[in-house]
Amino acid sequence: MNIEQRIQNAMQRHFEEVTGDSTPPTLKAAMRHALFPGGARIRPQLYMAVAMVSAEDAPLITDAGAVALELMHSASLVHDDMPCFDDAQLRRGKTTVHVEFSEPVALLTGDALIVMAYQVLINQSTGKSISRKHANRLLEMMHVLSQGVGAPSGIVAGQAWECESKVDLWKYQRAKTGALFTAATCMGAIAAGANPAPWRELGESLGDAYQIADDIRDVIGHAELLGKPIGQDVEHGRPSAAQVLGLEGANKEFKRLIENAAKSVPQCHGRHILREMISKESERLVPQPEYQRYIEMTKLNPKGVGHLV
Amino acid sequence: MNIEQRIQNAMQRHFEEVTGDSTPPTLKAAMRHALFPGGARIRPQLYMAVAMVSAEDAPLITDAGAVALELMHSASLVHDDMPCFDDAQLRRGKTTVHVEFSEPVALLTGDALIVMAYQVLINQSTGKSISRKHANRLLEMMHVLSQGVGAPSGIVAGQAWECESKVDLWKYQRAKTGALFTAATCMGAIAAGANPAPWRELGESLGDAYQIADDIRDVIGHAELLGKPIGQDVEHGRPSAAQVLGLEGANKEFKRLIENAAKSVPQCHGRHILREMISKESERLVPQPEYQRYIEMTKLNPKGVGHLV
Repeated sequence: MNIEQRIQNAMQRHFEEVTGDSTPPTLKAAMRHALFPGGARIRPQLYMAVAMVSAEDAPLITDAGAVALELMHSASLVHDDMPCFDDAQLRRGKTTVHVEFSEPVALLTGDALIVMAYQVLINQSTGKSISRKHANRLLEMMHVLSQGVGAPSGIVAGQAWECESKVDLWKYQRAKTGALFTAATCMGAIAAGANPAPWRELGESLGDAYQIADDIRDVIGHAELLGKPIGQDVEHGRPSAAQVLGLEGANKEFKRLIENAAKSVPQCHGRHILREMISKESERLVPQPEYQRYIEMTKLNPKGVGHLV
Repeated sequence: MNIEQRIQNAMQRHFEEVTGDSTPPTLKAAMRHALFPGGARIRPQLYMAVAMVSAEDAPLITDAGAVALELMHSASLVHDDMPCFDDAQLRRGKTTVHVEFSEPVALLTGDALIVMAYQVLINQSTGKSISRKHANRLLEMMHVLSQGVGAPSGIVAGQAWECESKVDLWKYQRAKTGALFTAATCMGAIAAGANPAPWRELGESLGDAYQIADDIRDVIGHAELLGKPIGQDVEHGRPSAAQVLGLEGANKEFKRLIENAAKSVPQCHGRHILREMISKESERLVPQPEYQRYIEMTKLNPKGVGHLV
């Protein structure tokens, strides 16, 4: 079973286990809408890759961590898409939760997904005789996950920086995206009983790279490819690396971060597999042929080509 | 130090510990606005009373549980007050978070408070050598807390029942309010290392009583006394016990539930203290003189007096 399939199975298993038969049907349908079929599931994949190369020895705990990460990410998407934030109509190629259901349901769905992220981890400890070792792993995983999501510098804080009049772009982006990537690599190590510290830099670099890639795609992207609207940063007056560094500066920084991520992978048995995964992911994040095409069209028409749509 | 003061101190200590200096200032201010000075803090009081009569032996864990309960309750109030739900302007006698700050900030504040509820519990396990006994207590407390908040039947699910076309009133109310009361009594026992099962009925009865009291006050209440608008159930078309049972039927049921709550308190050293607390709380919830005044005015003017405002 490959990583994608393992994550998918775990997502479905935990979704049914937590929601069961007595969750209000609309809430359950909205939660399912937010989770399935899902996007690239990049955070749980990264997490699981780290757990696997760290010689995981408790696969059910590993599974639960992957699901918890994806639940937190999905919760933030549901809330960010709401009218008071991005007012987005499309997400992952389909209608957003508040459009498909309603605003109140979207609000509750995000809340329920946040709680569910903890539930799937906690459920690994209930109804069974759990060792002290595993209890501590679960608590440490929840600790790191909470740092990636809550105050003072998780993704919720990242969104909150958008509500401040004065913002440090890097602090904002580190929190907005990087925090959950860092949680992913560190949690992967913890799930396997390994030391998370050597894995922090990988998460930070990839998180920064991912955020810059998002900024770049927001300029050059096709809405159809992205599954969500483009030009959102300018429209919402959000700080963006592509605006601060210029498009070419941003692309250069993106490449530097990817290189740094690959270099940072600690010595371990599956080091080359992780590096390959990073290289493949970087091609998906900012397809260089598409980037070049955009640059050339801008040169042909220096007054601006607008978006390639 | 009395219970109120102990809860207040714990709230302030944990608030500073989690938010620190680097939380975005507006988010931190909004979280503080939602938490302080606070309402009656009835859930943490109930919880702490149970922990104390159960001979608590880990006061820092007890404190953390009280804070976690109040954080979850406050998060639900912030989100419920938002325009897509109740669109309330007043809460606890001051402006609601989205009115004082903004809708996006209110949305993030609720999310951050939910995560913080787990953080304060998890923080009892990090950076210190924790015994297996205490690690398991924390996990069990988080398990029960999650049941009181998330899917399938916590307070979030309770709110979600309002979005269904067909609702069972008791199932809805049990989830909407009762779930967190039940979590409170059970968590109190767990925090003290006691068996939570004998404390479940107390939480359920009080939760049901509290919800009915809310329905009764929504009819007879004064907005100034409640610190929030009245007549909300009718305005929002929400199912209400006062509508289903009639006002006198609802008051009778309220009294029955309070009696049942008092009876359900298990044999323990401080049984009489808990029973006194319940009796005092019932007077605060539905002041019988005020109720009688309303009934008499309705008799004088059988076509309806509207609200006594």
